[in-house]
Amino acid sequence: MTLAAIFIAGILAAGAGAEDGDVLFQASTIDALLEGVYDGDVTFSELGEHGDFGIGTVNALDGEMIALDGQFYQIRTDGKVYPVEEEKKTPFAAVTFFGADRTEEIRDIGGIEELERVLDGMLPSRNIFYAIRIDGEFDYIKTRSVPRQERPYPPLADVVKEQTVFELRGVKGTIAGFWCPAYVKGIGVPEYHLHFIAADRSAGGHLLDCRVKEAVCGIDDTGRFYMALPGTVDFLKTDLSGERSGALKKVEK
Amino acid sequence: MTLAAIFIAGILAAGAGAEDGDVLFQASTIDALLEGVYDGDVTFSELGEHGDFGIGTVNALDGEMIALDGQFYQIRTDGKVYPVEEEKKTPFAAVTFFGADRTEEIRDIGGIEELERVLDGMLPSRNIFYAIRIDGEFDYIKTRSVPRQERPYPPLADVVKEQTVFELRGVKGTIAGFWCPAYVKGIGVPEYHLHFIAADRSAGGHLLDCRVKEAVCGIDDTGRFYMALPGTVDFLKTDLSGERSGALKKVEK
Repeated sequence: MTLAAIFIAGILAAGAGAEDGDVLFQASTIDALLEGVYDGDVTFSELGEHGDFGIGTVNALDGEMIALDGQFYQIRTDGKVYPVEEEKKTPFAAVTFFGADRTEEIRDIGGIEELERVLDGMLPSRNIFYAIRIDGEFDYIKTRSVPRQERPYPPLADVVKEQTVFELRGVKGTIAGFWCPAYVKGIGVPEYHLHFIAADRSAGGHLLDCRVKEAVCGIDDTGRFYMALPGTVDFLKTDLSGERSGALKKVEK
Repeated sequence: MTLAAIFIAGILAAGAGAEDGDVLFQASTIDALLEGVYDGDVTFSELGEHGDFGIGTVNALDGEMIALDGQFYQIRTDGKVYPVEEEKKTPFAAVTFFGADRTEEIRDIGGIEELERVLDGMLPSRNIFYAIRIDGEFDYIKTRSVPRQERPYPPLADVVKEQTVFELRGVKGTIAGFWCPAYVKGIGVPEYHLHFIAADRSAGGHLLDCRVKEAVCGIDDTGRFYMALPGTVDFLKTDLSGERSGALKKVEK
């Protein structure tokens, strides 16, 4: 058996598609966020009912969000990490209850493209979702955060032009996020979408680049996807027809 | 207020995106079905836990499925209607618990395009999902069913070339199905996907055309989408990259 075949056998044994399979819960769509729908109606309290792990942002696009072990954190453009109050809401987030189906030690990885190729080898099928958690020591981390917006909201591509970039060296911490299939285009972020938080919770953000010294990488195979659309005038009235792959690439990298 | 604005106010009041909003549950993706993934792992028993209303097919692509009031029916190429046993499984289906948010009387509609334009006027936003149920008397109904397949499974576009078409005149019955946003492309069927069943359960199938004498049309606004991917080798190994809008149009009309 090839490695992919062994992994697929594992998915079958675990029943990725069966009743008790893992669920990726997502608030709103990425295209709505790209169009400037920065206020959602899902609270972090509700988000916590759907997962203890994930990424996203906070209403008014108030920074980058990362959730680990049931704790929700927000990294603002001052580079600092804040706990997110339960009553706050999110315009876009993806969460799951994380439990690794397999883990692998990784080391001496020179950049984010190399990391993505290593992770590619741990994903048995391009057709399901994966939660990814990498705990370890990083020679280099490059992240960004986005500034809180005021109405009328500009599109995300415009906001990202004013993003703040952070560089960290020799830092312990966790990379968390998801890999989604190509077919989620328009709804979610195809392939990798990763955030970072330092072990001492002093820094973090949307991951732009990294060099891994040594880390443990866990992959959680996820066969179910549950999306809650905002019941807000902004969401209901936005023109979501058309194709935004180009705009998405601009804001993610 | 325009009619659309009044409907949107209704969605806001009902909380389409809120915790207790309606959920459209879908087994697998339409692109996997187009590629010939005709065996899924969701039983009709589980499907019934997610909805009492919907459409789809049965493993081995054994005809057209329609669910009304918790009863699941299968229309085979002999044109007859069979109850679906609970232990059977589906490769593709969409269900919800139907409760109309608004209803409208419709009459004297000359064809399916005209019907779709009338329904368009009942959908306040192009960004959420809708379940549609039309009960009434039809001057004309044109449906089709697809023949049960044997492995190795051909693509759906090839199967549809051998579809059986049925024409009914002066028939009472129900049209049931969904309208989905454009952004579900690759995952679900954008816009209308409707099946029909006769009131006396003597006939039905995937709706190709109709003339409405008089009927009551109910629309159920649905702000949540829950997709269960099959944990099967066929699904996990199929190449689901690429664009299939052309193939979808061929099989739906």
